[in-house]
Amino acid sequence: MARSPTASEIREPKTIADVRDALVRVAGCGVCHTDAGFLDSGVRTRHPLPLVLGHEISGYVEDAGSAFRQLVGRAVVVPAVLPCGICADCRAGRPTVCACQVMPGNDCDGGFATHVVVPARSLCEVPGATQDPDAPLSGGTTLRHMAVVADAVSTAYQSVHRSGAARGDAAVVVGLGGVGGYAAQIARDRGAAGIHVDRDHGRAAVDVDPARLEAARAQGAAGAIDPSGLSGKEVRARVQAAAREAGAAASGWKIFECSGTAAGQATAFGLLGPAATLMVVGFTLDAVTVRLSNLMAFDAKAVGNWGCDPAHYPEIVRMVLDGRIDIVSSTQMRPLSAVGRVFEELREHRVSGRVVLVPDEEARA
Amino acid sequence: MARSPTASEIREPKTIADVRDALVRVAGCGVCHTDAGFLDSGVRTRHPLPLVLGHEISGYVEDAGSAFRQLVGRAVVVPAVLPCGICADCRAGRPTVCACQVMPGNDCDGGFATHVVVPARSLCEVPGATQDPDAPLSGGTTLRHMAVVADAVSTAYQSVHRSGAARGDAAVVVGLGGVGGYAAQIARDRGAAGIHVDRDHGRAAVDVDPARLEAARAQGAAGAIDPSGLSGKEVRARVQAAAREAGAAASGWKIFECSGTAAGQATAFGLLGPAATLMVVGFTLDAVTVRLSNLMAFDAKAVGNWGCDPAHYPEIVRMVLDGRIDIVSSTQMRPLSAVGRVFEELREHRVSGRVVLVPDEEARA
Repeated sequence: MARSPTASEIREPKTIADVRDALVRVAGCGVCHTDAGFLDSGVRTRHPLPLVLGHEISGYVEDAGSAFRQLVGRAVVVPAVLPCGICADCRAGRPTVCACQVMPGNDCDGGFATHVVVPARSLCEVPGATQDPDAPLSGGTTLRHMAVVADAVSTAYQSVHRSGAARGDAAVVVGLGGVGGYAAQIARDRGAAGIHVDRDHGRAAVDVDPARLEAARAQGAAGAIDPSGLSGKEVRARVQAAAREAGAAASGWKIFECSGTAAGQATAFGLLGPAATLMVVGFTLDAVTVRLSNLMAFDAKAVGNWGCDPAHYPEIVRMVLDGRIDIVSSTQMRPLSAVGRVFEELREHRVSGRVVLVPDEEARA
Repeated sequence: MARSPTASEIREPKTIADVRDALVRVAGCGVCHTDAGFLDSGVRTRHPLPLVLGHEISGYVEDAGSAFRQLVGRAVVVPAVLPCGICADCRAGRPTVCACQVMPGNDCDGGFATHVVVPARSLCEVPGATQDPDAPLSGGTTLRHMAVVADAVSTAYQSVHRSGAARGDAAVVVGLGGVGGYAAQIARDRGAAGIHVDRDHGRAAVDVDPARLEAARAQGAAGAIDPSGLSGKEVRARVQAAAREAGAAASGWKIFECSGTAAGQATAFGLLGPAATLMVVGFTLDAVTVRLSNLMAFDAKAVGNWGCDPAHYPEIVRMVLDGRIDIVSSTQMRPLSAVGRVFEELREHRVSGRVVLVPDEEARA
């Protein structure tokens, strides 16, 4: 079990030891399902424990190695997966499987801290940011909110990008938690008709979340379906009806499994149809029983998504600043000292939307 | 259960009723796993029974509708999946999921006959063919052998094409039956290092086929692995060792599941690694239990393949005529009247390689 940072650790100053690194003062660090996996579900961190968790970081560069001096003073988003840029995989255009990749809070100390040392190469500058992390950059978005771009938004972005979702497609999002909500927004931005399937898949505490589906409808979703008590065929029929009503194509559905549960994966796999693309975005250690040959019979595919190529980040930041992705309404700020309580609330399913932890000396009410 | 054609049916002359159709005199028709599925495993044909099976056809165009008169007299391969060319899916570049597609022996009477009527639009001419179906076109290849191009070779081709297999990749073929053997050849033609995993997955009659693995080694495979009695991890370790020895990349494996069995699919899924592509080529009604999230964790994908876009056929025919794909050594000719016996032998696993049925009045010893 990874431990939560203690007060002494989160205030400990850090220094860079490598010319390729940068020292980032944390403005905010998002709390991710993956962190809960490390803490509670036996998912192992790649770096041995003890380790400070947190991989969804925005902040200011306070120091940087010689090749990256120009970054000092800049406001940045730290991509959750930082590839080396020089290995065979990076050169072959598959940076997200770089074997030397650094993920804060997994390969090195992460962002549940005041400062973090990370490779400088892939940091993404946030244009227009001042030295005040609470100053609005656009609408109500601040640099602290930008923390969620590091993983939740960028994972959703790369998933939608890889799916090829475009105008006229049905984009079916299973699980409307953090990542799923962003995937729905990004698919809609590309002109796809959003159809959202949500319940609290297989979890005991909460059964259905009508509020999420209501919000999805309010945000212009073509369909919002609660699969509770429905057979796979019935869910499929409802999605078909919603797609038809929205004028979306009957084939080539883009399905985004974002619940990270076996029940959600079974639902999503059951939605496969002709030329469908199932994006496996959420993670669970649980296995599912599926007829894999349906991929063949439907000429369909199931595509995994790990992190996001840093090359996509400038466009994602632009989309947020343009208001095409709303990261404010689903995000709540909490002081870093409340990290233990936040994980308690997550376990009890009492958190809706994304939590961003803010180092205490800077936290505002 | 679909019935086998009777002698009266296979000699019944047919005529075209639609200006878009062609009447093809069958030179040869391959016997496919899919036919056995229709006959024995409860897989349903799309056209109601009775129906003449057979979708792997080569032959001569004897008659054609007004728009296709230029085809009359030509030697052709009939693609197993014939898309309409005008629907939304065809125009969107996904002809293999065309809802109006015609597959002989599934949507209409097929090629276990002397003649077959099919849509003319996608027929692929065989350059250099004379009016003698037994005349060598190149090496020992005749127009009759070309029947296997209609499905087994073209399915393998599109699978390799979609996988993106290229020089330096490890191409792992699970199941070396007809389609798997062609996939191995086509991947090798693209410079990938072939690693072959074969046993008679989960079938009772035959346990392992050492002859196939021996043949694979003889054909220049980098590795030939019998997974019998090995754990998934052990199979993976052997494939890793073979890939390393062949100088192939440790990531981005292209894995071709061609056995069409749940055991083969489990083996193939267990081989997933960073940025791997699993092509689901074989079909089985059986389900498998897998950790679908491995696709996410490995940034990998599983891609189904139904048929082959007719646009690929001219290149495939060229590869066969150039000797880059050998379709002779794995093919045996049998008279059409022996169709019942051939299916008996298939059931008893006494057939190695592909059987092409030849209408009797033309069959040679």
